[in-house]
Amino acid sequence: MSTQESTVSDQNGTGRRNGKPTLAVVGATGAVGSVMLGILTEREDVWGEIRLVASARSAGKVLRVRGEDVVVQALTPEVFDGVDVAMFDVPDEVSAEWAPIAVERGAVAVDNSGAFRMDPDVPLVVPEVNGEQARNRPKGIISNPNCTTLTMMDALGALHARWRLTELVVASYQAASGAGQPGVDRLYDELEVVAGNRGLGQRAGDVAEAVAAKLGDGPSPFPAPLALNVVPVAGSVKDGGWTSEELKVRNESRKILGIPDLRVSATCVRVPVQTTHSLAVHATFAEEITVEEARAALEAAPSVEVLDDLAAGVFPTPAGTVGGDPTVVGRLRQALDFPNTLDLFVCGDNLRKGAALNTAQIAELLAAEFTA
Amino acid sequence: MSTQESTVSDQNGTGRRNGKPTLAVVGATGAVGSVMLGILTEREDVWGEIRLVASARSAGKVLRVRGEDVVVQALTPEVFDGVDVAMFDVPDEVSAEWAPIAVERGAVAVDNSGAFRMDPDVPLVVPEVNGEQARNRPKGIISNPNCTTLTMMDALGALHARWRLTELVVASYQAASGAGQPGVDRLYDELEVVAGNRGLGQRAGDVAEAVAAKLGDGPSPFPAPLALNVVPVAGSVKDGGWTSEELKVRNESRKILGIPDLRVSATCVRVPVQTTHSLAVHATFAEEITVEEARAALEAAPSVEVLDDLAAGVFPTPAGTVGGDPTVVGRLRQALDFPNTLDLFVCGDNLRKGAALNTAQIAELLAAEFTA
Repeated sequence: MSTQESTVSDQNGTGRRNGKPTLAVVGATGAVGSVMLGILTEREDVWGEIRLVASARSAGKVLRVRGEDVVVQALTPEVFDGVDVAMFDVPDEVSAEWAPIAVERGAVAVDNSGAFRMDPDVPLVVPEVNGEQARNRPKGIISNPNCTTLTMMDALGALHARWRLTELVVASYQAASGAGQPGVDRLYDELEVVAGNRGLGQRAGDVAEAVAAKLGDGPSPFPAPLALNVVPVAGSVKDGGWTSEELKVRNESRKILGIPDLRVSATCVRVPVQTTHSLAVHATFAEEITVEEARAALEAAPSVEVLDDLAAGVFPTPAGTVGGDPTVVGRLRQALDFPNTLDLFVCGDNLRKGAALNTAQIAELLAAEFTA
Repeated sequence: MSTQESTVSDQNGTGRRNGKPTLAVVGATGAVGSVMLGILTEREDVWGEIRLVASARSAGKVLRVRGEDVVVQALTPEVFDGVDVAMFDVPDEVSAEWAPIAVERGAVAVDNSGAFRMDPDVPLVVPEVNGEQARNRPKGIISNPNCTTLTMMDALGALHARWRLTELVVASYQAASGAGQPGVDRLYDELEVVAGNRGLGQRAGDVAEAVAAKLGDGPSPFPAPLALNVVPVAGSVKDGGWTSEELKVRNESRKILGIPDLRVSATCVRVPVQTTHSLAVHATFAEEITVEEARAALEAAPSVEVLDDLAAGVFPTPAGTVGGDPTVVGRLRQALDFPNTLDLFVCGDNLRKGAALNTAQIAELLAAEFTA
C-alpha cells in the first residue's frame, strides 16, 4: 500500500483517514467488484481508507484502486472494525450471514444481493428515485436493487413522478455478465466454437452439439447454449412457472417506486451480449402522457440519456451503452391502442448502474452523513 | 431436367403432369426460396411440374427439388403460361408488379411480400387459423403473413378460438435470416471478428470499432453491429416512431384473427441468432384462462409443440426450434396482476412456418381445389 496521506484519528476516535469515512468492499475480486474499483477511482474521492475484502482464497491478492495498490483481506468479523460503510457484492447466503456481522461491528451495510431486498426494515434504494429512504435503516442495512430492475428505475421514476405509473409489461434482453465472470467466459468460449462454423443454426440442436463437442459437458451458468441463441430463463424457478428474476422485477419495482399495487408482468431472457441489459417496456400511467412530454421529462432526468431519433439512426443498443453511467432510453412511442401508455426501449450497464455504480451512489449518501 | 413422368394434357387443356397442378416458385434462389425447395421435396407431392423462376441474373442455374434437377427460368410474363399456382418470395415492388401478371396468365398468386397483405380484397392466410378464407380471393392473390406475426399465429389462434383475445403486448427476438442471406452472412462475418477478441463489449462502441476495422464500412443489412449486441430496429421507419415490422405485427394479427379492434403494442428487436424468431407475448382474453387449460388447448393444436416444464429444464429456444415445422411454446404463466392474461414465450422458424412452409401450405389448399 502506498499513500501520501496519513491515517489520523478524528474526534470520534475512529481511524478515519483525513477525517473521511472508511469503506470496505466485500467481493472485491468478482465481476462487479472489479467494476467497483474503477468507479471508486473515477468518482469524487469521499473515502478515507478503502479496505478490499474477499474469500480466504483471494486474500493476499493485490488490486489497484484510486491509483494505490491494496492487499485483499480475508472476510472475518475483525475486518469490519473501524469500517463506516461495508459494500457487499457476494452471493445471497454470504450476505445473509455477513452483512449483520458488519453491522454489529459498527458499519452500515450496502448489500447488492437478494438477501434483504424485500425485508420491510431494509430500504431498497435508487438515489435518483428514493434516495431519502437511505436514512431510514432500522437494521443498519440498505439493499441495492437487482440489475434488471435497476435498468429501468431512473427512467420510470422520472415518468412516474409526473404521470403516476400503474402497469408495466417488460421483456428483457439480459447480458452474459449478469451471471458474473463465468457467464462472460462461457459466452466467449461458445462464440469461438460457432464463429467459423457457418451453417450452424439451421437445424435444431446443432449449436448445442457443436458447443458440447468442443467444450465438453463442463458446467455452464446458462441452461442452454447462449451463442447464436436466446435463453428465456434467468434466475431460479419459482411458483407458477415464474423465475426469481421476473418476480424481482415485479416486487422490487413496486418497493422502489412506492406503488404497492403496481401491475407488472416480466419475461426475462438472456441474450449473447457481454454487458448491458436492455428492456422493452410497455408502461401505462394514470394520466395522459405524450411522447414529447415524456421525452422532455427523461431529458431532464440527471441520470438518463435519450437517444430517440429513429429516422436519423439514433436508438439505444447495449453495445453502445456499456461502460457508461446513464440509463439510455429510446424508441419512445405512444401505444396506438392503449390509453396513457408509452412503449420504450431502455439500456443500462448491468455492472455499473445495475450494480456497482448504484451501490457506490448509496454509499456516497452515507459518506455525506458521516462527514456532515 | 430428369423425370420418369411424362407431361400430358388434361381435360382442361393445361399441360398438367399426371393431372396434377403446375407450380411456379418465383424467387427460387433466395434464402426463403432454398428452404422452399427442401419443403416441396419433403412434403406430400401434390404438384405436377414445378417451375423455378428468378431474376434474369440467376436464370440458367440448376437447382434440385423433389430429387430432380430443374433449370431456373427468368421472370417473364410467358413463364406463367400453364401455371396454376405461382408462389412469390421477392421484394414488395417485384410482387406488386408481377403477381397481377401471373394472375392475368391464369395462375393464383400466393405472395410472401408486404405488397398486398392489407388489401381488403386479398385474404391473409394461416391455414390452421383462417384457411377457409383462401377460397375468397377476388384479385386471384392470397398473401402470406409477415414472419414475425406468423411466429405466434398458430398458438394465439388456438387460444383465441376459446377465450377470445383482446390485447397483445409483444417483444420480439428476431433472427438475422429475417434480413435474408445477407443478414446471415453479416452475422457470421461479425462473429468471426468478435469471437477471439475477449475484452470486447465492455466499452461503448468497441464492438462497432472492431467490426468496422475488419469489415470496413461495407453495407450491413442492420443499422448497428449484431454480434454481441441487440438492435431494436427491424423494417423501415413509420409515423410516431413505429417501425414497419411493429405495425405489421399489429395490423396483420388483427386481420388473420378477425379481430379488427385487437389492441396491440409490439417492440421488434434483432438478436444475433441465425434463424428462428422468438416472441415474449403478454396476451389478454375476454374470458378467464388458466395455464392448465391453455396448455391443453395448445397441445391439442396440430401445429404447436409445447415445451413447458421449467423445473425440468424444458423451455423453447430458437437454436432448439430451427429447422422444424411446429411453433414451439413454453414459459406459460398466469399474469399475477392482470386478469384473464397469460404470459408466454414462442419460437418459430422464420424461414419455414414464418415464410416457406406457410406459403407451401396455402398453395396446397389451392392444389386440393384444382384436383378436387
